Amino acid sequence: MQPAIHVITLGVADLERSLSFYRALGLKSPGVIGTEFPGGAAAMFELQNGLILALYGRADLASDANTTFEAPGSGEFSIGHLVGSRDEVDGVLAEATAAGATLTEEPHDRPWGIYSGYFRDPDGHLWEVIWNPRLDSTST
Amino acid sequence: MQPAIHVITLGVADLERSLSFYRALGLKSPGVIGTEFPGGAAAMFELQNGLILALYGRADLASDANTTFEAPGSGEFSIGHLVGSRDEVDGVLAEATAAGATLTEEPHDRPWGIYSGYFRDPDGHLWEVIWNPRLDSTST
Repeated sequence: MQPAIHVITLGVADLERSLSFYRALGLKSPGVIGTEFPGGAAAMFELQNGLILALYGRADLASDANTTFEAPGSGEFSIGHLVGSRDEVDGVLAEATAAGATLTEEPHDRPWGIYSGYFRDPDGHLWEVIWNPRLDSTST
Repeated sequence: MQPAIHVITLGVADLERSLSFYRALGLKSPGVIGTEFPGGAAAMFELQNGLILALYGRADLASDANTTFEAPGSGEFSIGHLVGSRDEVDGVLAEATAAGATLTEEPHDRPWGIYSGYFRDPDGHLWEVIWNPRLDSTST
């Protein structure tokens, strides 16, 4: 396997709701596509370097992968988003909360040298917003 | 928020087991780091374009995010990995199965024009291995 990830697909309860949420955070998407295929409706955001963030109905994802999401131990993860300053961490978390996310805690300094906080999106997916002072540039 | 994801962190039951699994798939990691910090042990793989795949103890991730993973609706997702041919899809799936993954189904053509199959890693995280004939090059 090549050291590459091209798409991150989040299972969601309501495509339009999740699309609105991520658009409110500033991500751009042409909207829901694939409705001509049973189980094909999805929405995609092109991120940096061609990485794709996809939203896909949870039941469709389970069906597409021929699995269920009740399986124990499946799925715990988080997505890391780097910004350039402490203030930007606070800003993105405020923006997410305003868009309907739940802050799981206030941002703070962590012993390994970063400043970060987490939010859950409307489907419970965890995002960590991080400032790492050891990185010279976090722009994309 | 900038359209960027920098880190994908998978919550795992056993860092060493998961490290071995992903190394068996060909990913390179300097090994477990951060053991000097309580709750800091993790392993990281640098992927294409600086994207990081991180492995982190499930309990540590829950604690770091100040949340629990029993929350309904959290976490269903999949990671997409593009390859250059139908045979490569079969090959990566075989490689993953040999390394201890569970194939959730045999790969097949999907109505939206791709050929793909899914596996679950030892912690249940879903990977979809995809050949998309409409893409000229999927090398990184």
